[in-house]
Amino acid sequence: MGESYTFPADRPLALDSGEALAPLTIAWKTYGTLNAQKSNAFLLCHALTGDQYAAGVHPVTGKPGWWSSMVGPGLPIDTNRFFVICANVVGGCMGSSGPHDINPANGAQLGLSFPVITIRDMVRAQALLLDHLGIESLFCVAGGSMGGMQVLQWAASYPERVYSALPLATAARHSAQNIAFHEVGRQAIMADPEWNAGDYFAKGTNPSKGLAVARMAAHITYLSEAALHRKFGRNLQNREALSYRFDADFQVESYLRHQGLSFVDRFDANSYLYITRAMDYFDLAADYGGVLAQAFRNTKTRFCIASFTSDWLFPTTESKKIVHALNAAGANVSFVEFETDKGHDAFLLDVPEMFQTLRGFIDAAAQARGLGAGRV
Amino acid sequence: MGESYTFPADRPLALDSGEALAPLTIAWKTYGTLNAQKSNAFLLCHALTGDQYAAGVHPVTGKPGWWSSMVGPGLPIDTNRFFVICANVVGGCMGSSGPHDINPANGAQLGLSFPVITIRDMVRAQALLLDHLGIESLFCVAGGSMGGMQVLQWAASYPERVYSALPLATAARHSAQNIAFHEVGRQAIMADPEWNAGDYFAKGTNPSKGLAVARMAAHITYLSEAALHRKFGRNLQNREALSYRFDADFQVESYLRHQGLSFVDRFDANSYLYITRAMDYFDLAADYGGVLAQAFRNTKTRFCIASFTSDWLFPTTESKKIVHALNAAGANVSFVEFETDKGHDAFLLDVPEMFQTLRGFIDAAAQARGLGAGRV
Repeated sequence: MGESYTFPADRPLALDSGEALAPLTIAWKTYGTLNAQKSNAFLLCHALTGDQYAAGVHPVTGKPGWWSSMVGPGLPIDTNRFFVICANVVGGCMGSSGPHDINPANGAQLGLSFPVITIRDMVRAQALLLDHLGIESLFCVAGGSMGGMQVLQWAASYPERVYSALPLATAARHSAQNIAFHEVGRQAIMADPEWNAGDYFAKGTNPSKGLAVARMAAHITYLSEAALHRKFGRNLQNREALSYRFDADFQVESYLRHQGLSFVDRFDANSYLYITRAMDYFDLAADYGGVLAQAFRNTKTRFCIASFTSDWLFPTTESKKIVHALNAAGANVSFVEFETDKGHDAFLLDVPEMFQTLRGFIDAAAQARGLGAGRV
Repeated sequence: MGESYTFPADRPLALDSGEALAPLTIAWKTYGTLNAQKSNAFLLCHALTGDQYAAGVHPVTGKPGWWSSMVGPGLPIDTNRFFVICANVVGGCMGSSGPHDINPANGAQLGLSFPVITIRDMVRAQALLLDHLGIESLFCVAGGSMGGMQVLQWAASYPERVYSALPLATAARHSAQNIAFHEVGRQAIMADPEWNAGDYFAKGTNPSKGLAVARMAAHITYLSEAALHRKFGRNLQNREALSYRFDADFQVESYLRHQGLSFVDRFDANSYLYITRAMDYFDLAADYGGVLAQAFRNTKTRFCIASFTSDWLFPTTESKKIVHALNAAGANVSFVEFETDKGHDAFLLDVPEMFQTLRGFIDAAAQARGLGAGRV
């Protein structure tokens, strides 16, 4: 299992909303060993439904961690070389402070009394964690989707602490269409009478049906039409002919129902509301007079921006905007678009070209940082 | 208001499921006048949430009919020349037989006892209506989306009754991604405890929250990312700054909530289940040994197939498959792709190039049919 620390109540997390979150708890997991110079720390930022269990086996689901293809001994994010840290985001439901926190005043879960948080708040909390761990600067910050938003925010907020940055399948601001999809998910949760205005723990209810619908809608956006066609097409599920009923006739229906049902076992509905809201609020340029390049002015961080051809949720056009801004800021940036039909989720999947490219970027940065050569 | 006819119980509608629907009621609306030769009948097929009120003012919503930009005196579908007929589909909720029908045995709504219907069943019912009206052959059958599916089915099932055909923004089979989006909508409805296994009339409940979520999810797919960005971007709704709450901060959220709420006033949740199911089941080639061209062999119908560049629900690739099959069948077919950022809903909207092109196709067909020249 991972570790967890609750900061003293007199060290609150100052939030973008103006509120202060105290006491702040952060739960995290590490892989590998911090070197004597403390120069090999590698921070991973997880996506909407991810958590600190990036590698190895997940203690709740028993399945591989979300980036176990990328993080481990000899893998591109090589735990023999790097001290890998991954923290559950503030607002999450795997041990860090979130709407499931207990209100000491009445012993009940906070629910919607928990303050709305932002991507910058998540990153601030991670910076406090690094202070706690005595790590001044990070060799690399990496993540995809919402994780990529955090990477960009890290580079903007703490440029001196970020030697290299790997934002994958992400954007510097959430689009209208993406806000719309998130709003559907939130409305699905809130429409569930068992949600009880977020007070479902106290009421002894569970908005699992609403959360499952939210997950199903979101899951479609993580894939591509081509991948769905390749995997399922119009194939029937365990039957020879149409049922002329409302059963799951098609494999794609059955798959989607399974995605919804299995998700509710590991995720909290209120956390889903808070984290989607944080993504919707993300607009990095807005904090810099609307000019994204200003977020990266004078940066010394080495960037590698990556997108995926079939990702329609965070399309390549969004990555290119980041690349343009970094170039305008005179940053050290490379950009790669990977050819795949796997959609947005490609950054989590087996894309050999991605492994090769990221290994090359990470190895070159490590050599420049004086961390020695990687596995040949 | 429109008209309605209930066929005698001994003239049931034979369904693809093997069941028979009786008594069958069809509700329809006509515009213009049938000529003496009965050669100017123009059938419109409506989409998932449309109905028979294609032109003029809708009697329930008070808003213009769904194709009022296209259908009327002097418009491309000119009601001074054509006798336009539009019928509510079987399974719908504007007067035709559907799950809201009363079971005479117990006086309660049928709910899920209503048989599952298909696109071909909808078309069979329309053919019965034409028999009832004494109309042997149609000058044209036109429709978009699910309406386009019916147009294709008309041309396949009754080629001798269809002089010309206009399927817009459609496909010859529903894709895995589209089935997945429909399944999300159905699950949203079924997750609403007020749905009561479809028996909500008897229970005095209304699954309006579930239906609203279904509509919200679907509505995003009817638009394009570019259109959402152009219309809303990240603009805030009636506020200067983020609320740090779960209110509708963004205009796109407010717009989407409105779409959901206004829809439930005019649509029945069970009808939504049945009609989405019919679309999912649609696979025209499957009835012809998997070869779409066989559906159109020896056809004499004149086809115009149209798609829209930003339509990602029924993309141009799907229209091209229809065009290829028609060409393989030696059919008289023209194909046009309209440049627009308006997404799937473009076929319902103000796209001047579409008006011009469809007017040209219809006028040429009318002259070939001996209906004289149209408005110059």
